[in-house]
Amino acid sequence: MNTTRLEAFSDAVIAIVMTIMVLELKVPHGTDLASLRPVLPTFLGYLLSFVYLGIYWNNHHHMLHATRKVNGGILWANLNLLFWLSLFPFATAWVGENHIESTPVAIYGCVLLMAAISYTILQTAIVKHDSHANALLADAIGSDLKGKVSLAFYAASIPIAFLSSWISIGLFVLVALIWLIPDPRIEKKLSE
Amino acid sequence: MNTTRLEAFSDAVIAIVMTIMVLELKVPHGTDLASLRPVLPTFLGYLLSFVYLGIYWNNHHHMLHATRKVNGGILWANLNLLFWLSLFPFATAWVGENHIESTPVAIYGCVLLMAAISYTILQTAIVKHDSHANALLADAIGSDLKGKVSLAFYAASIPIAFLSSWISIGLFVLVALIWLIPDPRIEKKLSE
Amino acid sequence: MNTTRLEAFSDAVIAIVMTIMVLELKVPHGTDLASLRPVLPTFLGYLLSFVYLGIYWNNHHHMLHATRKVNGGILWANLNLLFWLSLFPFATAWVGENHIESTPVAIYGCVLLMAAISYTILQTAIVKHDSHANALLADAIGSDLKGKVSLAFYAASIPIAFLSSWISIGLFVLVALIWLIPDPRIEKKLSE
Amino acid sequence: MNTTRLEAFSDAVIAIVMTIMVLELKVPHGTDLASLRPVLPTFLGYLLSFVYLGIYWNNHHHMLHATRKVNGGILWANLNLLFWLSLFPFATAWVGENHIESTPVAIYGCVLLMAAISYTILQTAIVKHDSHANALLADAIGSDLKGKVSLAFYAASIPIAFLSSWISIGLFVLVALIWLIPDPRIEKKLSE
Repeated sequence: MNTTRLEAFSDAVIAIVMTIMVLELKVPHGTDLASLRPVLPTFLGYLLSFVYLGIYWNNHHHMLHATRKVNGGILWANLNLLFWLSLFPFATAWVGENHIESTPVAIYGCVLLMAAISYTILQTAIVKHDSHANALLADAIGSDLKGKVSLAFYAASIPIAFLSSWISIGLFVLVALIWLIPDPRIEKKLSE
Repeated sequence: MNTTRLEAFSDAVIAIVMTIMVLELKVPHGTDLASLRPVLPTFLGYLLSFVYLGIYWNNHHHMLHATRKVNGGILWANLNLLFWLSLFPFATAWVGENHIESTPVAIYGCVLLMAAISYTILQTAIVKHDSHANALLADAIGSDLKGKVSLAFYAASIPIAFLSSWISIGLFVLVALIWLIPDPRIEKKLSE
Repeated sequence: MNTTRLEAFSDAVIAIVMTIMVLELKVPHGTDLASLRPVLPTFLGYLLSFVYLGIYWNNHHHMLHATRKVNGGILWANLNLLFWLSLFPFATAWVGENHIESTPVAIYGCVLLMAAISYTILQTAIVKHDSHANALLADAIGSDLKGKVSLAFYAASIPIAFLSSWISIGLFVLVALIWLIPDPRIEKKLSE
Repeated sequence: MNTTRLEAFSDAVIAIVMTIMVLELKVPHGTDLASLRPVLPTFLGYLLSFVYLGIYWNNHHHMLHATRKVNGGILWANLNLLFWLSLFPFATAWVGENHIESTPVAIYGCVLLMAAISYTILQTAIVKHDSHANALLADAIGSDLKGKVSLAFYAASIPIAFLSSWISIGLFVLVALIWLIPDPRIEKKLSE
């Protein structure tokens, strides 16, 4: 199996996950601006999850671009990643509909953590199997401080949510910004 | 990254957004023609949003067809556009389920405005980064009266909705017609 | 614009329409076989609409396979077809949830009729614009008894639904069978 | 028709079916861990169905990879398979929302059985029509103990569900593991 179909399938799943999240934005019953307020947390959660899925799509593309061939293990590592990404709409909606309470925020952190672990597993499987990807990605992975910081922040966000869900959400936003901002100085510091 | 995967991903998101809007057409409880009446505003809103998404898909394709390479900025400008397009089902349903009231119509205008601004940002990012696209698109963009009129009409539709939501809707239909009708005289006048 | 992106986009929309119809199969509250009975009409309607969408996908592919280039008119004729196909889930659910009553069945017939007319418009636009498609398709279209019979049966099904919705449904099934069964004798008779 | 479009269309449908299942994970009303408990059966059912769809996607790809040309019969055999796969969300939700009762579990077994039969029909149609696929696949199919065991287990799970739905679910998990685990000794034993 070449990577084309794997990429196309992953793209389709990520595009669907991104888009069906908007179905969780329930149409308000009222017709004034105030009636939008209950939708606001879900909207902001949708925005955050959309950004996360965009980051995954982007990184996933770069990784598979360096990959020449896939085997059964890579295929299932990829499906495992897609499974956890597909839980974003559920976790987002649970946080958004409940005024940012501790347990939903902790579960959102769990889903982020599991997706990040799944991504790491996929990366490892690809580097082990494909010498081309190994040559291109091994260095980047060895010093992948950005990835390690993300994993640590996701893991920390879960217990922290029971102290203050806002700090956990701050961690989620921070990790998203680390991946989004292309400032080379930040990237250099993080990858040292 | 080449443009193929960016195009395929954008197509998937636009196709899904277009199609899940139909899920907002709630099946009527009655079984006579009169029971279709409450669905009519949502149906017409669906038609209008479908046409808008078709216009975006068409223009997006032409722009990316002229583009040879993309960078991180273009990728995120594209995801930003897709984010605002993904809000069409929500805005359409809110207008359709509430007898064309002012606030929902104004929010629909906001979503159209944000999508148009996002498209302009994407266009600018592409022309700046890609000399091939620059050569092909710069002239068209410089004299892009059609795009500028659209932005002005979307912006105007927001306050106007609080005077008369019907005038705002008239503006939405007018902008859609400007993009739809391929009459070269209108195009020439608009691009003078 | 070449046909590849048009085909890919149409495929995506048809795949989504086919699949979201299953969301109209509401999970029964009971847990015995009898509680499946209210779902049965929607299930059979889903099956029929699935077959129709499969026929459209198949014919659409054959037509675009013969096409070399598309213009704005073809693009919008194609979006018009996709719009009517996207109403299948709504029409199917309305028929299925209401014990096959006259008005929903007539509306289902209207949607089938509009989709068939839209297909004919698309076909005409392609044959006019593209000489390659013209050479390949013009003969088949000239003697397209199958298409004409379908249009007539859809049109007839609308008033007939108010006499007996079962006769209309019989017509829908008959047209689907005409397109499905590859028996060359039937095809020859129909195309004489 | 070549296999590219057939593959792309099947991928799209499978990706959508996989992903819309998550819409059946209803957001809990409470905000503590206990309120996740009612969602747990649906979540586990989602996981199982996701794995099954992954197995089908994987096998489907390998089979079509060996195929050079398709005809109308293969096309409809493929749509038939996609139809049964599209019922996974419905069957999964019915089992998950009802504490693993007998009838829903039996219906889930029926859907698995019909999907497996449809896959066998598709396989047979491809091997009959395409000499290239025949050369590559005929041996594998002749000694397809894995496929035959699966069919027998699905068929057995239907009556067994009325004795104990847990045994049926055990059979579903067992079949999934048979396909998942790439242990060559198991594969060898099964294919002897």
